[in-house]
Amino acid sequence: MRVGLLGAGRIGNVHAQAISAHHDSALVAVSDAFDDNAQALAATYGCAVRSSDEIIADSNIDAVLIATSTDTHSDLIEAAAAAGKAVLCEKPVDLSLARATACLENVGDRAAKIMIGFNRRFDPSFNALKSAIIAGEIGKTELLSLTSFDPAPPPVSYIKVSGGLFRDMMIHDFDMANFIMGATPVTVSAAGTSIVDPAIGEAGDVDTAVVTLTYADGRIAVIKNSRRAVYGYDQRIEVLGSEGLLQAQNMLENTVVKSTASGVSSAKPTYFFLERYMPAYKAEWAAFVAAVKGDTDMPVNLIDGVAALAMAEAATRSAQTGRPVDMAEITGNSGRGEAA
Amino acid sequence: MRVGLLGAGRIGNVHAQAISAHHDSALVAVSDAFDDNAQALAATYGCAVRSSDEIIADSNIDAVLIATSTDTHSDLIEAAAAAGKAVLCEKPVDLSLARATACLENVGDRAAKIMIGFNRRFDPSFNALKSAIIAGEIGKTELLSLTSFDPAPPPVSYIKVSGGLFRDMMIHDFDMANFIMGATPVTVSAAGTSIVDPAIGEAGDVDTAVVTLTYADGRIAVIKNSRRAVYGYDQRIEVLGSEGLLQAQNMLENTVVKSTASGVSSAKPTYFFLERYMPAYKAEWAAFVAAVKGDTDMPVNLIDGVAALAMAEAATRSAQTGRPVDMAEITGNSGRGEAA
Amino acid sequence: MRVGLLGAGRIGNVHAQAISAHHDSALVAVSDAFDDNAQALAATYGCAVRSSDEIIADSNIDAVLIATSTDTHSDLIEAAAAAGKAVLCEKPVDLSLARATACLENVGDRAAKIMIGFNRRFDPSFNALKSAIIAGEIGKTELLSLTSFDPAPPPVSYIKVSGGLFRDMMIHDFDMANFIMGATPVTVSAAGTSIVDPAIGEAGDVDTAVVTLTYADGRIAVIKNSRRAVYGYDQRIEVLGSEGLLQAQNMLENTVVKSTASGVSSAKPTYFFLERYMPAYKAEWAAFVAAVKGDTDMPVNLIDGVAALAMAEAATRSAQTGRPVDMAEITGNSGRGEAA
Amino acid sequence: MRVGLLGAGRIGNVHAQAISAHHDSALVAVSDAFDDNAQALAATYGCAVRSSDEIIADSNIDAVLIATSTDTHSDLIEAAAAAGKAVLCEKPVDLSLARATACLENVGDRAAKIMIGFNRRFDPSFNALKSAIIAGEIGKTELLSLTSFDPAPPPVSYIKVSGGLFRDMMIHDFDMANFIMGATPVTVSAAGTSIVDPAIGEAGDVDTAVVTLTYADGRIAVIKNSRRAVYGYDQRIEVLGSEGLLQAQNMLENTVVKSTASGVSSAKPTYFFLERYMPAYKAEWAAFVAAVKGDTDMPVNLIDGVAALAMAEAATRSAQTGRPVDMAEITGNSGRGEAA
Repeated sequence: MRVGLLGAGRIGNVHAQAISAHHDSALVAVSDAFDDNAQALAATYGCAVRSSDEIIADSNIDAVLIATSTDTHSDLIEAAAAAGKAVLCEKPVDLSLARATACLENVGDRAAKIMIGFNRRFDPSFNALKSAIIAGEIGKTELLSLTSFDPAPPPVSYIKVSGGLFRDMMIHDFDMANFIMGATPVTVSAAGTSIVDPAIGEAGDVDTAVVTLTYADGRIAVIKNSRRAVYGYDQRIEVLGSEGLLQAQNMLENTVVKSTASGVSSAKPTYFFLERYMPAYKAEWAAFVAAVKGDTDMPVNLIDGVAALAMAEAATRSAQTGRPVDMAEITGNSGRGEAA
Repeated sequence: MRVGLLGAGRIGNVHAQAISAHHDSALVAVSDAFDDNAQALAATYGCAVRSSDEIIADSNIDAVLIATSTDTHSDLIEAAAAAGKAVLCEKPVDLSLARATACLENVGDRAAKIMIGFNRRFDPSFNALKSAIIAGEIGKTELLSLTSFDPAPPPVSYIKVSGGLFRDMMIHDFDMANFIMGATPVTVSAAGTSIVDPAIGEAGDVDTAVVTLTYADGRIAVIKNSRRAVYGYDQRIEVLGSEGLLQAQNMLENTVVKSTASGVSSAKPTYFFLERYMPAYKAEWAAFVAAVKGDTDMPVNLIDGVAALAMAEAATRSAQTGRPVDMAEITGNSGRGEAA
Repeated sequence: MRVGLLGAGRIGNVHAQAISAHHDSALVAVSDAFDDNAQALAATYGCAVRSSDEIIADSNIDAVLIATSTDTHSDLIEAAAAAGKAVLCEKPVDLSLARATACLENVGDRAAKIMIGFNRRFDPSFNALKSAIIAGEIGKTELLSLTSFDPAPPPVSYIKVSGGLFRDMMIHDFDMANFIMGATPVTVSAAGTSIVDPAIGEAGDVDTAVVTLTYADGRIAVIKNSRRAVYGYDQRIEVLGSEGLLQAQNMLENTVVKSTASGVSSAKPTYFFLERYMPAYKAEWAAFVAAVKGDTDMPVNLIDGVAALAMAEAATRSAQTGRPVDMAEITGNSGRGEAA
Repeated sequence: MRVGLLGAGRIGNVHAQAISAHHDSALVAVSDAFDDNAQALAATYGCAVRSSDEIIADSNIDAVLIATSTDTHSDLIEAAAAAGKAVLCEKPVDLSLARATACLENVGDRAAKIMIGFNRRFDPSFNALKSAIIAGEIGKTELLSLTSFDPAPPPVSYIKVSGGLFRDMMIHDFDMANFIMGATPVTVSAAGTSIVDPAIGEAGDVDTAVVTLTYADGRIAVIKNSRRAVYGYDQRIEVLGSEGLLQAQNMLENTVVKSTASGVSSAKPTYFFLERYMPAYKAEWAAFVAAVKGDTDMPVNLIDGVAALAMAEAATRSAQTGRPVDMAEITGNSGRGEAA
């Protein structure tokens, strides 16, 4: 599979590494708004620098990976889909739910063939947890808890253009809830605060939030986000079921334990997403390649991407109004139950 | 200290053991609505069987421990306080917030001298966690999570007279939130479901619930309750602060770990409250005795008991109406900020 | 059961507490070489102060607990046994294997009725590990490891009269090996060093030692001892079997885990034997009472006590000569295979 | 760096992957006694198939990696060194200590430039443990314990030509002891048994062994090996020092913990050396490349390889004779204290 990479930033480089390492794919071209970025990546991986338009128009390129700025995602998805390319697009689909929904309509029945980069679904531990649920190891799921804390908040300048915590950060957890629960919620209730940094509040966003999701069948999920956990990247899942509890705990940097007069200590969690989720990025790319080769539906697709974005929209509204939001208010139906 | 015990049921027996084992207290009399209960307890601990009225009226008795059915608590607190007794009363103060509030008014400035039996405050691990917060080990607290799952639901007949999950079970967590946060919340938002047993729903109660608390200073707390965790009694606390995270994890029955071809396994959590919290019950009694002897305020008092009950009232209302409830709606002010 | 306690030192006080707390035993008299010790203990527990001879001669006393200095154990065991008392004697039986062996011969067929205070057999976790072995959970045992580190070395003055690390400290591990393996070894090979404190070496003892035991059926055990683990009392067992591994890990002071920028830390092991083994001391006493009441053999008896002492003798000789020692050299047969 | 690989078996393939993935090295040729093996590897990595002689003679090849059968190692090391190649040779140097010692003499002052593939030194957790020791985090080291259990024994046909457990399996632990202790021992005392499989005993080998090492400065190390741990590959290190304890624990396959009515369970250790030590193999190759480029001594060299082999020789003799062996008996001096 010949692959064109759109976007040569930090996450673009992560994907370039996965594309190059996979025995069934080759990175042939890269584009970036900043020529220096594109040139540097091209030099490392031995591919051409071209424009996004050229890459999409090239009939010798089979697939594009979209890792550009979020505001370009929908346009590029539509163009690449129109050109018959296989598409893997970074999350989120868009900051605007309306634009993402339009994108979904525009691509029509190709939506299931367009993969959205919710890398966490491919984390080995999260995957093992999901497999245990499917295998019935804890019976019927009842109560899900997701904990996602970043090590440190981004600059306020980034916060201002990020779309806010719910669209930028918790979007991963909304997708994870859909993945684990196998359904989308009917109500979303959010509480948010800017307790980490008041400047984030002044920029109109929150840095700490708790969101409760309720489901048509009576299940409940709760998501906790913080922009700052000084001990590192905290990424945990916990599911209570009728026959037990499953927890996916943090990965630690190493397995050394030290006992001294001042206590017993161990390594910290792997620092941030590049360290923690590198195996997931590789597995994500492998899943994409497998789906393209087998001509099967993507394991996480554009419909899922829009579903998570709708939940982010609902959470944003709930945090602003201080009341629970029915997903039907957002989507015009009761939560696109077909997703996940 | 000569002690009279009102109530010889299961929890009465727990307290009888703690009273007898303490070198500064002696159990001299017990009462119970069922004479057999009282006789059995009296035989074990070598004390007299008397009526509650007689015990309260006896000037040779210094303190009473109220472990009767909840509907009698307020009356007995008032009577014992009027008789000048030191009082330790089991939680909750009352199922009726109005009655509990009246009791608080009736006892006047003795409220701080009347201890309410929130035993979990005296658990060694929860106490160590609180001490670490006070010592500033995680900086400023920001986000609290409490997990309390019982091993199995009580009979529906009990559910019907329990006052509901929020007053009967989560009351402990409301007090724990007040204890850890050192403040009472300004809003309470609850989601509840009867997913464990539909019969609980038919009885008008929930068996699984998530409650989010917000505080005047921007902090957030979330409480998760389930009536059923088949692996045992799950009692955990987690607090994120500006400089770290504190977790109080479950105690296990023993420290044995077994690794076989089918995996690595360890012991389950200590089964239920009698096993898990026995050290806490003993420490609770010791704290009561120390406060009485030193004539100091109780470590957890009637004001705290009413504060937790008000939160239970708010949560019940929120779960029923599907909207967040301001504590001011319930208490007529912004949450009795003086408590905890 | 009316009990006389011989010895009112630190371990005597531990036993006094267990005797008093048990519903089927009463502490009626105490003796001690230092009258102040005896008086203090008698005041706390409300019993008489008498001489050891008087206690042993008193036909109203059913059982004696011997917690005097080690050099008096054999004489007191013989006297108490001759007087028809049930006996629980602290470990070791004697510092002299010859004297202990003579004691064993002198008490004749009462040996199985005389309990030796190897408290660790009654530790809940060690017991659970033993039960798992008996239940066949790891198949046939093959390789045992015992780790026993004290928090800090005793004064050199104590070391000089202690009989040495193998008789004073590792004696517990020799008995534990016999307990877990259900057999005594055929060879003992020891390496010792005084790396913690050269003064201990100058006093003729070691402070750190590794002993390897081999068994007639091909199994192997290894014991590690150190007089100093600055993080506390380290007491662990690990057994590899044909179908798995069992580990009994340390108990921690509490369950709090703290994650900060400088790492993840938890509580230290419970500090020393009083904290760690208090439940074991109570269970030991209960087992003694049960055996006396049921007129059954003791769960750990004088034969076991002499077997452990013989292993200590062998280890001492091995460390001094730098070669493995056959147990037959010590005992005149191949290890008293009947023990444990 | 242009690299020739001698040997295309399982471990050869592991190294081929590391060589190819490294940005500063390229695999240009491979040889193997079985042409099919060489062809398959060459096809995967796009390199030439040649004879070992041709590879060593080719002046365009900078380095050779020796992954052939053990009996060829010494000859190939000498030939490659004579041809001026940088050399990384798999462990052990040889089954014959005499031959390995001759090899060491034959290569002369190039010994420090020839790397021996003790991959475990490059394991991230073992490395972190070593770094903590160097940083003084546990003070002075006193007592080292190494646990290495394989998941399942190899076929008896392999056992017969393996050189025995001490040369084939425990050789890794001897090197690890040298690495952690920073010195070689003065005595080696071994106990071995064929309890896992009597057929291994009939083949003249042991399958379970405990070796005790003593050091000139009074320190002690103990190594435990078993050919069978049904729960997977058990690889742990534990070091007691004057100021604390360091433990490197097993890596688990994932971080999922499951709590059910039958207990709490987690994933097993990563299954075997390919899974567990893949990061170590990559780091090992990176260290080799860095040493070659910087023209510095190798992090683990031929001298270290011979030192470990001498310890294996001593352990074999000790297990056979049932007495401790002085390293001076084996090496003619007190243990090549210059190694490690």
